[in-house]
Amino acid sequence: MEEKKISKHPLLDTIDSPADLRKLPVEKLPEVCADIRSFLIDSLSDNPGHFASGMGAVELTVALHYVMNTPYDRIVWDVGHQAYGHKLLTGRRDRFSENRKLNGLSGFPNPAESEYDTFTAGHASNSISAALGMAISSAMDGESPRRNVVAVIGDASISGGLAFEGMNNAANVPNNLLIILNDNDMSIDRNVGSLNSNLAHLTISKGYNDLRYKLYHFLRRHHLVSDKGKGLIMRFNNSLKALLSREQNIFEGLNIRYFGPFDGHDVKTLVTVLNDIKDMSGPRILHLCTVKGKGYEPAEKDPATWHAPGKFNPATGERIKGAPGPKPPKYQEVFGETLLEMAKDDRRIIGITAAMPSGTSLNIMQAAMPDRVFDVGISEGHAVTFAGGLAHEGKRPFVAIYSSFLQRAYDHLIHDVAIQELPVTFCIDRAGLVGEDGVTHHGLFDLAYLRSIPGMIVAAPSSEVMLRNLMFTANQREKYPMAIRYPRGSGSNTDWKQPFRRMEIGKGIKVKEGTDVAVISIGTIAREVTEAIQTAEKEGVSAAHYDAVFLKPLDDDMLHEVARKNCPVITVEDASVVGGLGSAVAEWMADHGYSQRVIRLGVPDKFVHQGTVAQLKELCGLDSTSIAKHIIEAGKEGKE
Amino acid sequence: MEEKKISKHPLLDTIDSPADLRKLPVEKLPEVCADIRSFLIDSLSDNPGHFASGMGAVELTVALHYVMNTPYDRIVWDVGHQAYGHKLLTGRRDRFSENRKLNGLSGFPNPAESEYDTFTAGHASNSISAALGMAISSAMDGESPRRNVVAVIGDASISGGLAFEGMNNAANVPNNLLIILNDNDMSIDRNVGSLNSNLAHLTISKGYNDLRYKLYHFLRRHHLVSDKGKGLIMRFNNSLKALLSREQNIFEGLNIRYFGPFDGHDVKTLVTVLNDIKDMSGPRILHLCTVKGKGYEPAEKDPATWHAPGKFNPATGERIKGAPGPKPPKYQEVFGETLLEMAKDDRRIIGITAAMPSGTSLNIMQAAMPDRVFDVGISEGHAVTFAGGLAHEGKRPFVAIYSSFLQRAYDHLIHDVAIQELPVTFCIDRAGLVGEDGVTHHGLFDLAYLRSIPGMIVAAPSSEVMLRNLMFTANQREKYPMAIRYPRGSGSNTDWKQPFRRMEIGKGIKVKEGTDVAVISIGTIAREVTEAIQTAEKEGVSAAHYDAVFLKPLDDDMLHEVARKNCPVITVEDASVVGGLGSAVAEWMADHGYSQRVIRLGVPDKFVHQGTVAQLKELCGLDSTSIAKHIIEAGKEGKE
Repeated sequence: MEEKKISKHPLLDTIDSPADLRKLPVEKLPEVCADIRSFLIDSLSDNPGHFASGMGAVELTVALHYVMNTPYDRIVWDVGHQAYGHKLLTGRRDRFSENRKLNGLSGFPNPAESEYDTFTAGHASNSISAALGMAISSAMDGESPRRNVVAVIGDASISGGLAFEGMNNAANVPNNLLIILNDNDMSIDRNVGSLNSNLAHLTISKGYNDLRYKLYHFLRRHHLVSDKGKGLIMRFNNSLKALLSREQNIFEGLNIRYFGPFDGHDVKTLVTVLNDIKDMSGPRILHLCTVKGKGYEPAEKDPATWHAPGKFNPATGERIKGAPGPKPPKYQEVFGETLLEMAKDDRRIIGITAAMPSGTSLNIMQAAMPDRVFDVGISEGHAVTFAGGLAHEGKRPFVAIYSSFLQRAYDHLIHDVAIQELPVTFCIDRAGLVGEDGVTHHGLFDLAYLRSIPGMIVAAPSSEVMLRNLMFTANQREKYPMAIRYPRGSGSNTDWKQPFRRMEIGKGIKVKEGTDVAVISIGTIAREVTEAIQTAEKEGVSAAHYDAVFLKPLDDDMLHEVARKNCPVITVEDASVVGGLGSAVAEWMADHGYSQRVIRLGVPDKFVHQGTVAQLKELCGLDSTSIAKHIIEAGKEGKE
Repeated sequence: MEEKKISKHPLLDTIDSPADLRKLPVEKLPEVCADIRSFLIDSLSDNPGHFASGMGAVELTVALHYVMNTPYDRIVWDVGHQAYGHKLLTGRRDRFSENRKLNGLSGFPNPAESEYDTFTAGHASNSISAALGMAISSAMDGESPRRNVVAVIGDASISGGLAFEGMNNAANVPNNLLIILNDNDMSIDRNVGSLNSNLAHLTISKGYNDLRYKLYHFLRRHHLVSDKGKGLIMRFNNSLKALLSREQNIFEGLNIRYFGPFDGHDVKTLVTVLNDIKDMSGPRILHLCTVKGKGYEPAEKDPATWHAPGKFNPATGERIKGAPGPKPPKYQEVFGETLLEMAKDDRRIIGITAAMPSGTSLNIMQAAMPDRVFDVGISEGHAVTFAGGLAHEGKRPFVAIYSSFLQRAYDHLIHDVAIQELPVTFCIDRAGLVGEDGVTHHGLFDLAYLRSIPGMIVAAPSSEVMLRNLMFTANQREKYPMAIRYPRGSGSNTDWKQPFRRMEIGKGIKVKEGTDVAVISIGTIAREVTEAIQTAEKEGVSAAHYDAVFLKPLDDDMLHEVARKNCPVITVEDASVVGGLGSAVAEWMADHGYSQRVIRLGVPDKFVHQGTVAQLKELCGLDSTSIAKHIIEAGKEGKE
C-alpha cells in the first residue's frame, strides 16, 4: 500500500482497460506514455523480457487503444515483442510481474489470455494475412458499427514472403484493413543509399487515390472486374504492372493507400492521424518512424543488445550478469566456433541465417568471414532454397535456424534439398523446450516432420563435443541433407574444444550396460536419463542406456541388441511424443517382429506454454525424477 | 526410316544438344521454333502432358540455349511446365514419347535426368532463390569464364512469397543472376486497370542504372556498406525505401536492373537482347511478353483448358474424351458440389484456394458465390493464415489445397491455426500417389506431418459419400483444425449425392469380420484392401477389415477390438510408411501394452517418381495383389 502512494506511474495505475484510457483528454496521453515506460523499465529490469521493441511502440500503442474501440476493433500484433504496453493497457498490469512465467502471462499476444489479443504472434510476418481475414469477414457481414482491423508490423517482419503475400492480396476484395508499419530502422544497413531522406518527401496523393479506389469499385459494381468467374482476384500482376508503370510506391502499387511517414513518438499527432484515416475505405498503410528502446538511453544507443537484455539496474543501465569464471559454453557458441574452425579448412563451407546471426552465434563466423555468411533476413524459405542452389554448385551450406522457424521452410527442405539429395546441413537451434518464449517457440515437431523425409539424416548430440563431431561428420558426406538439432543454452562441459572425430552415420552409442530395462534417448535429455538411471539403481533396478544419436537412419545393430535383452524398452526425447524417436523404435520393433514393451517418453501431444525449461520438463514428465519413476516401474516388470 | 524422310521437324532432328543449335545461323532459329511446336503438337496430342505453357516458351527456350553456354551456364526453370522445348533441345527428343511415363522422362526438369536440368521444379516460385545460390557460388569462386545463371519464372509464380524473398535478396551480394519474367498474362484479370498499355512505355534507363550500380560497388569496395558486420545484407527496407522514393519500378526498387518488355516470340530479337545483357554485372530482370499456347490456335484461344488438355486431334484441336455415360465423379467434383451445397445453408462457410480453383473444383462454388470464394494466387502460406483470421471472426473457412503444396504452409497451419484451435477445414487434394506429375506432386507426407500437431483432426474418406459426410461433420465442430485428405481422380460410386450424415469424430468403421488377420486401412486404398481380402479368402484366410477413417484422434475402441483378436494386424495407407497410420497403430499398441505383430504397408521411405497411379501402387506394394500376399502370409501365421 505504501508503494502505491509513491507509484512511479500514477496515471497508468488508473487504467484498467482501454475504456479508462479513452476517458482521458488527449493532453494526458504523453503522461500515460511516460508511465508505461517507467513501468516497463522497473518491471523488466527485475523480470527480464523483450525490452527495446516495447519501448519503441509505446505511443503507437496508446494512440491505437485511444482511437480504436478495442476489443471490438481488432489489433493484430506481428511477432509481438512490442506488445507489452498493450498488455499493460488491457487489464494485465497487475499480472505483468508474471510475464513469461509458468501460468503467468505469455511474452507474446495470446488469444487464450485476453480478448484484446486477437491472434497468435511469435513467428514473424503473419499479421497482415490474419488481419485481412478479420477485415474481410467484417466487410462481408456488413457489420455496424464498422469494425476496424489494424495489423501492426515492424520493418523486419514486413520483409517476409508471407507479409508480401498478405499485402498482395489485401487490395483484391473490399476490406478496411489498416496496416501500421512500425519502422524502427533496425533492419537497415544505414550506410547504404541515401534513401532515408527521401521518405520525408512522400506525400499523400489523396485525389489520385480516391479516384482510383472509386474506379475500382465502379468496375466491381458493374461486374467489369470479372473474367471467367475469377473476378474477385486482382492478382499480383496487376500490382506488378502498376509498379512498372511508375506508380508512387510499393504499397500504392499494390493498391494500398499510403500515409506517412510520421513521427511514431508524437502521440498527439498519432491520435489525429489515426482519427483522420480510420474511417476511410479500403486497405491503407500508415508508416511510422520509431526508435527502438525509445526513452531509455542505454537501449537507444544499443538496441540490439537491449532487444532482450536480461536483468539490469534501471538507474544505471548496467546489465546484471552471472558470476564470472569458467562456465560451460552455450550450444550456440559451440556451433558458432566450430563452424568457423571448419570453414577455415574448407572453402566450400557457407553459413546461412534468416535474421538470427547473434541468436544462432553464426555472427562468430560472420565477423571473421563476412563474405561467406549470408543473413537473408526474415525469409526462412528462401534461406533453404538458396542453400539448395549453393549446394548444387558444390558448396557446403550450413543453415543455422531455430527448430520452430524451420517449419516455415518445410516444403523447401523437401522440394529444394531432399529430392535432389543435396548436402545441406541444418543446424537446428532451439530444439526441444525453449522456456520463457513459450508455445510459438518450442522446437517440438522437428523430429517428427524430418523423419518422414526420404534420405534425410537426422541427428541430435548429447554433448557439446558430440555437436562438434556431428558437424564435422556432416561435412564429410557427399550427399543427402542432414539435420543436427540441439537446445537453447548451456551444456555441462567446459572442455569442449577437442580434436574432431568423425562419427559413423546411423550409429548409436551404448552409454551403459544394464539388465532390467533398456533406455534409448536422443539428444541432451541424456543428462536427465543418466540421473534417472542413478536413482533407479539405488532402487535396485539395473538400466542399460543407449544414446541413439541418429533418429534416421536408425542403428539396426543397436536396436537388435536392445531387443534381444528381452526387457522393457523406454525411449526418451525432448520433442513431441508423436512421430519421433519413440515412434521410430515402435515401428522398428513391429517391423522386426519383436514384441518388447516400448514405453515412449516425450512431450505430450498438446501445446506447451511458457515457463522455465526445468518447470516445463517437469510438467512434461521429462525431468529426471519422472523419468526415474518410469525406469523403476519398467525395471521391476523387466525383472519378472 | 520412312518416317524420318517425311519428318515434320527436319531441322530439330539435327539437334542433339544445344551445341548443335549454336552452330546454326540466327536466321534458322525461327525454323527451329516451328519444328519444336510441330513436335510438341504431334507428341502431346497422343501422349498428354502440359501443353500451352511449353508452346508459349519456345522462342525463349531456343534463344536461351543459343546464347548461353549450357550446361556450363545454368538455366533454372520455375515450375517447369514450360520446359518441354528445353528437353527437346537437350538430347531427350527421342525419349520424349516416354514423357511422364514410368521410367521415362519426368514432366518437369529433373537434375537426376539431365545435367541441363539444374534444379527440381514442380512447386512454384523457387527458381530465383535457387539460381541466386548458383550465381553467388560462381561469383565467390571467381569462375572463368564467367558462368551465367538464368532463372525463368512465370508471372503467376513470381507472386509467391518465396520469389519475393529471392528477389529481395538478389541485390545484396555480388552476383550476375539474370531473371527472365515469362509474362503470359495468365494470372491477370484483364478487365482491371489499364496498366497493360503502360508496359510499352517502359524504357531502360541505362545511365541511371549504371551509375547506381557503380555507386553501390564503390561503397562496398570502400567498406562503407558495412554496419556491425552486417555489411553484406542490404535488407528489404532499403528496397522498400528505394521504392518509396519514386524509383522506376519494383525490380529497380529492389536494385535489380530491369529490361523490357520485349516480344517473347521474336526469337531473333531475343538473341540480340540476351547477347546485349548477358555479360553485364549484377542482377538483372528481362521482361518478356508471351502468349500461352502460342502457335496453336485452339490453345491460344483457351489457354486454361489447354494447360493440360489430355489427348487431342492435332489437325482439328478436338479434345478426345472418354466414352459418354454415367461415370463415377472425381473426388474433386464431390468436394466442389458438396461445399456449394453446404455453403447454401451456412453463411459462415468460405472457400479458399491458392491458384487452383479448377484443379480443386472450388470453381463450382466460385461460380455460384463469387463473394465467398477467395483465390489468393500462388501463396499457400497466406491462404492458411488468412483462413485463420476468418475463423477468428466466426467464419468457417474450407481451404482446398494439394497435399504437397500444403507443405508450404506447414508452419502457418501450426502457428496461425492449430495453436488457436481454430475451426479451419483443410480439404487436402491430390493426397497419395498422383501418377504422372511425379516426385514433386505426390501427397505422401501429410499423414505424418499432420499427426504430430496437437489438436489436429485428421481424416481420410474411403468413398465419395464419406467425403461428403466428413465435410459435413467438419462443419459441425466448434474448434480445432480438421484435415480431410482424398486422392486425385475418380472414385467408384455414381450415386454419391446422398443426404448428409454426421459422423463421430475419432470413430472407425468395421467393414468386415474376420479371424486370422485384421487389416486397418485409411482412405480410398480400402478398395484395394477389399479386393485383397477377397483373394485371401480364396486361399482360406479370414481377414477382418477396419476402416480407421480418422488417423487422429484414433479410435480406441476399435483398436482394442483389433488387439484382442490376438492375430496379426496389417495397416495399409497410401502415404509414407514413416509416421502415418502404421506408426500410429504401432505407437498405440506399445502404449497399451499389446504385443500383436503389426505389419505396416505404405509408400516406402524413398522418393517416388512418375508413372500411372496403378503402376506406382504396384511399385510401392500397394496394389491389391501385393496387399493380398501380406494378408495371406500374416493370416496363415495368425491361424497358428
